[in-house]
Amino acid sequence: MPDTVTLLIEPLAADADATAVDGTFREVDASAPALRVGELSTQRGDGIFETIGVVDGHAQEVRPHLERLRNSARICELPEPNLAQWEAAIARAVGALPATGEFALKLVLSRGVEHGPAPTAWLHVSPAADFSAPRERGIRVVTLDRGYDRGTAERAPWLLLGAKTLSYAVNMAALREAHRHGADDTIFVTSDGYVMEGPTSSVILRHGDVWSTPAPSGAILHGTTQLSLFEHLEATDRRTEYRDIPVDELRSADAAWLVSSVRLAAGITELDGAPMPYDAAETRALNEYLLSPRD
Amino acid sequence: MPDTVTLLIEPLAADADATAVDGTFREVDASAPALRVGELSTQRGDGIFETIGVVDGHAQEVRPHLERLRNSARICELPEPNLAQWEAAIARAVGALPATGEFALKLVLSRGVEHGPAPTAWLHVSPAADFSAPRERGIRVVTLDRGYDRGTAERAPWLLLGAKTLSYAVNMAALREAHRHGADDTIFVTSDGYVMEGPTSSVILRHGDVWSTPAPSGAILHGTTQLSLFEHLEATDRRTEYRDIPVDELRSADAAWLVSSVRLAAGITELDGAPMPYDAAETRALNEYLLSPRD
Repeated sequence: MPDTVTLLIEPLAADADATAVDGTFREVDASAPALRVGELSTQRGDGIFETIGVVDGHAQEVRPHLERLRNSARICELPEPNLAQWEAAIARAVGALPATGEFALKLVLSRGVEHGPAPTAWLHVSPAADFSAPRERGIRVVTLDRGYDRGTAERAPWLLLGAKTLSYAVNMAALREAHRHGADDTIFVTSDGYVMEGPTSSVILRHGDVWSTPAPSGAILHGTTQLSLFEHLEATDRRTEYRDIPVDELRSADAAWLVSSVRLAAGITELDGAPMPYDAAETRALNEYLLSPRD
Repeated sequence: MPDTVTLLIEPLAADADATAVDGTFREVDASAPALRVGELSTQRGDGIFETIGVVDGHAQEVRPHLERLRNSARICELPEPNLAQWEAAIARAVGALPATGEFALKLVLSRGVEHGPAPTAWLHVSPAADFSAPRERGIRVVTLDRGYDRGTAERAPWLLLGAKTLSYAVNMAALREAHRHGADDTIFVTSDGYVMEGPTSSVILRHGDVWSTPAPSGAILHGTTQLSLFEHLEATDRRTEYRDIPVDELRSADAAWLVSSVRLAAGITELDGAPMPYDAAETRALNEYLLSPRD
């Protein structure tokens, strides 16, 4: 069986009938050209995406990812996606994969070709990298100023802070900056000193028996993995809370993680060069849950 | 003759010999797929670009654009571009165009295909839109908060504020916000109230006989058209200066323009709903200069 699948998708209107899905997917070879140079995704980073984990033939948390895609489309004034069409595309791609192993499935909705009639869309799924080291041994993290204060997103919605756009050059540069400091990843903080998120992950802390994460405001993407973990923690009688977290409270946490859809939970072993307590047993339990089928 | 030309370019190392340029361009049909879905330009807005005006067979200010491309590559830690190769590609594309008319020539240098061996690059030139209305009758502009204070770029170089990256979703959203206010364009201001730049242009003001523009710091892209205009103004004995410009000084200017490589000089007739003095004669003179062959 192939271990990568690429589907080009003709986006349907949000209210199109489910039967209209037939014939709107076209499988292509990922190593062959599929996009025009006039694509606004490539010219302007003008589009949105989601990355979904696939574990042993099961795409995780499809609905929350698609709901977030819809929210990103609203913020970016892209046509509302047809979620049933995306679900069908995901099912078709996952059905073509081997029944075991971990994969990263990426959905992209672009504004389309410049002066073109319609958005373009595609899905690409490929084997996940081997994340056993960050999951089992943790990661070193540095904090980096994101340049915005806590009130920015509300004051300036055109900065698209709550949308998962394709304009991720800064996120990638922040990871390179972290690597220069000998770290594996970074946590963005506001210019007024509050914890935000990683460039491709959410932050979760534990102080005693209280689990917390920065309150999702317009400036923080609401993490699907964080949401799923909090539901799981609440279902097992743990206390969770959303709140503003000054960076000093991150430093004083009893344990902290970056969580994301494909790498899953990575415990923070070092923050800005200082050791952090690492909770191996809890990290193992979190990843066991995250690797189990979740909807 | 064709009025669009698209060249895919195999980027040469910066120190490659000029003779190595042969065979590194491939002309493709812009309406056919040319890029893979794994392109980091499209997945992450991870690449840089320049837009060059072409007037009656002459590409304007090629060297300053290529120098800026090189500077963007340095900030983004992309391999240094081979400027001779880009010059040859531009010459080849322009040579294939009709000898009269205005065109927009876009250079893109992408980080390449994910996990791929090398950056990808291309050039696309197409007819410019008809900009006679903004050049002759001016534009209405609103100011929008860019969310960063004046010191951000120096404090946080990972925000890539001085690079012309492909991550322009915010720039495009700011233009949509301007249109919602009934305006044609926008000027970004810092969160502490200083004039920055337009999403795709530089700001020039005139107070009496003094022409000014915001001091190019790490947060402002140094505009090639602004530079060219200032050289021209200085050559004709006008006084120019770079300085920090509080937004109130923009409001009190005797005239103000947004200048860019293809639209050229557009006088501001209205700022945040209030009329601005419009200098028709000076605007005509600026555009006459900008339409003349410049190197």
